[in-house]
Amino acid sequence: MRASAGEHGETEKGARSVPGRGRAPRRPLQPLTSRHGRPAGTVVDIDGVKVGLAELAIMAGPCSVESAEQILRIAHEVKEAGATILRGGAFKPRTSPYDFQGLGKVGLEYLLAASRETGLKVVTEVMDPRDVELVAQYAHCLQIGSRNMQNYPLLREVGRTSKPVLLKRGLSATYREFLLAAEHIMAEGNGQVILCERGIRGLSTELRFTLDLSAVPYLKGETHLPVIVDPSHGTGTARLVPAMSRAAIACGADGLIIETHYSPKDSISDAAQTISTAEFAELMRELATVATAVGRKCRCQ
Amino acid sequence: MRASAGEHGETEKGARSVPGRGRAPRRPLQPLTSRHGRPAGTVVDIDGVKVGLAELAIMAGPCSVESAEQILRIAHEVKEAGATILRGGAFKPRTSPYDFQGLGKVGLEYLLAASRETGLKVVTEVMDPRDVELVAQYAHCLQIGSRNMQNYPLLREVGRTSKPVLLKRGLSATYREFLLAAEHIMAEGNGQVILCERGIRGLSTELRFTLDLSAVPYLKGETHLPVIVDPSHGTGTARLVPAMSRAAIACGADGLIIETHYSPKDSISDAAQTISTAEFAELMRELATVATAVGRKCRCQ
Amino acid sequence: MRASAGEHGETEKGARSVPGRGRAPRRPLQPLTSRHGRPAGTVVDIDGVKVGLAELAIMAGPCSVESAEQILRIAHEVKEAGATILRGGAFKPRTSPYDFQGLGKVGLEYLLAASRETGLKVVTEVMDPRDVELVAQYAHCLQIGSRNMQNYPLLREVGRTSKPVLLKRGLSATYREFLLAAEHIMAEGNGQVILCERGIRGLSTELRFTLDLSAVPYLKGETHLPVIVDPSHGTGTARLVPAMSRAAIACGADGLIIETHYSPKDSISDAAQTISTAEFAELMRELATVATAVGRKCRCQ
Amino acid sequence: MRASAGEHGETEKGARSVPGRGRAPRRPLQPLTSRHGRPAGTVVDIDGVKVGLAELAIMAGPCSVESAEQILRIAHEVKEAGATILRGGAFKPRTSPYDFQGLGKVGLEYLLAASRETGLKVVTEVMDPRDVELVAQYAHCLQIGSRNMQNYPLLREVGRTSKPVLLKRGLSATYREFLLAAEHIMAEGNGQVILCERGIRGLSTELRFTLDLSAVPYLKGETHLPVIVDPSHGTGTARLVPAMSRAAIACGADGLIIETHYSPKDSISDAAQTISTAEFAELMRELATVATAVGRKCRCQ
Repeated sequence: MRASAGEHGETEKGARSVPGRGRAPRRPLQPLTSRHGRPAGTVVDIDGVKVGLAELAIMAGPCSVESAEQILRIAHEVKEAGATILRGGAFKPRTSPYDFQGLGKVGLEYLLAASRETGLKVVTEVMDPRDVELVAQYAHCLQIGSRNMQNYPLLREVGRTSKPVLLKRGLSATYREFLLAAEHIMAEGNGQVILCERGIRGLSTELRFTLDLSAVPYLKGETHLPVIVDPSHGTGTARLVPAMSRAAIACGADGLIIETHYSPKDSISDAAQTISTAEFAELMRELATVATAVGRKCRCQ
Repeated sequence: MRASAGEHGETEKGARSVPGRGRAPRRPLQPLTSRHGRPAGTVVDIDGVKVGLAELAIMAGPCSVESAEQILRIAHEVKEAGATILRGGAFKPRTSPYDFQGLGKVGLEYLLAASRETGLKVVTEVMDPRDVELVAQYAHCLQIGSRNMQNYPLLREVGRTSKPVLLKRGLSATYREFLLAAEHIMAEGNGQVILCERGIRGLSTELRFTLDLSAVPYLKGETHLPVIVDPSHGTGTARLVPAMSRAAIACGADGLIIETHYSPKDSISDAAQTISTAEFAELMRELATVATAVGRKCRCQ
Repeated sequence: MRASAGEHGETEKGARSVPGRGRAPRRPLQPLTSRHGRPAGTVVDIDGVKVGLAELAIMAGPCSVESAEQILRIAHEVKEAGATILRGGAFKPRTSPYDFQGLGKVGLEYLLAASRETGLKVVTEVMDPRDVELVAQYAHCLQIGSRNMQNYPLLREVGRTSKPVLLKRGLSATYREFLLAAEHIMAEGNGQVILCERGIRGLSTELRFTLDLSAVPYLKGETHLPVIVDPSHGTGTARLVPAMSRAAIACGADGLIIETHYSPKDSISDAAQTISTAEFAELMRELATVATAVGRKCRCQ
Repeated sequence: MRASAGEHGETEKGARSVPGRGRAPRRPLQPLTSRHGRPAGTVVDIDGVKVGLAELAIMAGPCSVESAEQILRIAHEVKEAGATILRGGAFKPRTSPYDFQGLGKVGLEYLLAASRETGLKVVTEVMDPRDVELVAQYAHCLQIGSRNMQNYPLLREVGRTSKPVLLKRGLSATYREFLLAAEHIMAEGNGQVILCERGIRGLSTELRFTLDLSAVPYLKGETHLPVIVDPSHGTGTARLVPAMSRAAIACGADGLIIETHYSPKDSISDAAQTISTAEFAELMRELATVATAVGRKCRCQ
């Protein structure tokens, strides 16, 4: 996965020495993320599912992959409701080291099995540059989580793959920092980047995060990359997910990534912000109407 | 305007001594803002224009009243586009003491004249408890600005009038503090309060403020009061106003308050966030479609 | 108290009409707060107690004046420990309308009585422009609270008195906004302004506010006005008050305002951030040492 | 460096697959960072230089290692002034991929050479779990930067070494999240962790960050780990560094990490927040006085 020639070269002595890592790529005339000269916008292709066209890209699934049965059942239910991409964490970044850290490789296998049975594409997080090659064998789209938005070795590593990357905004990242994180990926040669607004920290309110929807039209004005929204982390509150999903579409988001589970209260992680698959199906019908109102399309039953 | 009996009583010596002001009203069983027991929601009546019904309440106009001609022309143009309430500042809170402070009473007269000619209702800010009586003679709805959300003498004073109050959220107010500011008004006997999300400070991004749209569904779940959104101050950026107006309606706002001017660049204040009246008319058509998609109505040409 | 000539003039018709209020004062060549041309710094004189000299100004007392006995006992204890200014709220801004709102005029009388017996000067908050004249009859220094930092009618009213003003920073005010709030006071002719850093909102941590001590050296570089720190509100946590008081002095603050009570747990308001008068006396001894280390002086037993 | 037995086990197929990474360590009865039961506090030993004793630990040096001559000259100058630990970036996290990324391994060699000549210990950042073994060959203390505070694979990797770790607080991390990041390191067996407050984002002021000094006494109350402060990043402004360094010591910090260069304006990175080595020497004399005032010691000329 790591380009050993240009990167390590002949000065490399041992397996882990990385003398060339400090070398910066050459600065292009325009940032690679810049909208200038690419008015049509980039369409990211997740193994056939397009992100950035009139049809919205809806990613849905549980916070964590818990078992083969769980992920398969949710995959069937969200596909039925109209989603085309399955989300689910196999490698989980957890604030406490003692919390469930995900099923790891086994989780990836369950995701791929669910994908094969339903036709949904898989997006899942990768946290460690050493796992990029592994995760890329299973996932159709690599997710970089908020905590890792400025983990540059990881950004470079996914930038060297040919997989689309879903890049989540850091909790206190400015728009410029967000775009420059995408630039780190693109500078390595991978132009298939989707930006995801997922709530910021700042003023402490009664909610976990402040979903900054102004980011959507702002970013769409600055970059040709697709922009999606995560209303689940962005509000931390299941009852607000439908309203904020509608708002995201109304202000121009190219898609959504939503945490859903057939039984949210039994979810191992993020139960408070997870909607039921029944609520998700209902939400999809609402989104179809809003999408039409703003000239987009949303597949639903 | 001020209830002199209960408030001042016999201990009052001079016109300005207020010995009884410290007495708190009796705490009700439920906060007066609480949704409990009022599932239908409050409909605020601005001299015949209703806020809180299926039909959206659209307030539009310039940042500042600049002249009789300016406010009249804008009033005609926003009415034509579908607005029913005219906004415009006569008493302006300005960060610098050397900036234009508004036309004062003359501005109120121009607003009322424009109202009489167009039938639009007037909402305008009052900053000083001593001006409440004056402003209430001209305005159909009294606006409390963000800087004054916790100016309790002012809240109490508008709470003693019979005019509807548009209460803007403070720049760093939690939802609880916002609701308790409304409670200060309601505890004085005035139940006609409209809440307005207008952007918060917190994380510094490229925008002046972060429009916190999650406040809309959150507050609608907590209170029976109508909730509207100010996308002009909320983004500080004219080009983002249409998208964020659509989003506000999609997530359940009962209305909008928008800064507009026939020639934004000539606006004395807030030029960067003011859209043209032509853009406003275009926006109203977009909003009508979004409103329908979420089961609301929006009057437009 | 209000300058009726220039302000109201002959155009004034009724007692409450204020046609001239909108007129801005003439912009000076330099902001009145600017350090330029006043390298020595302003020394504010609170009826003989100086703020801005080598000797630190220590203001101490309870959150609220509760009774004549309470304020007198605390006054004696803080004087004994070395304080020269007595704080205590008579008009209290409270988030909820149903909480204790202060004793009002009676509280002012208790403060003045305690001042007469101990020789301490009184600083107390004024919230309503209509109360400025009343409060100025009792207090030696008028406090503008954080919620009112941008309450311009109030700033103008205290700017028309000859009393020193303690201006607290708003919860989300930038330094520029803070200095311009002082400018509103100074533009009315009152140059006796003390700035007070008291914690900001922003990132939500485990503490109520984030005490922004960088404001002290930053502001001292920008303005000739004295700058003091409120570690009680700034941390919201009694156990952090001593450390943050020491830090404030070490980075150049001209004084402190500290909430203290002989029995913090019995304090009607702000109990969690109130230190005991015994702890206050101990803190004063620590401060004397730190003050000496940075070339200042602090009076203590 | 990586424990291959428990971590990879027999299920590992290829060099980079890590099926067992998801397994969480067993939760201890008390968090490993907890102050309970360790009232004396941990003393971290950086190859003989102690952090957490009465004597303050002063780390100083340039933002980036630029050349052998540069780092050696700075090392001599900061040692002369009283520092015992040399800082300098060899692997630099940069917001833009096109900025100087550090000298990498060569930079480490220059640091080690400067260390051998002066006796100063070396602290330098590691960004990539694959570089931990390399950096640990040169550095006496491994720095985890703010952007990586929740880069758990990296935390685990440094937790498996025997080198002390300097953990910087994330830009929007709560105290709890900060302590849990340390817990990730300690759960792997490395108890030699130093916490570093370096400024947070939140309210946007005129400064890059808000140095949250309340974190110092707060954290010292919660954990037995030493806490130091970075006033250079914490203010982003060279002229504020001396005042905030004094404040940090006054509120209980166990040390400081300061960016300094003999010619700040020629610094490749962070010029605006870098003080000259002459200013650093002057600051050390001030710190010695403040340290004495709070019962600590600071070595200076």
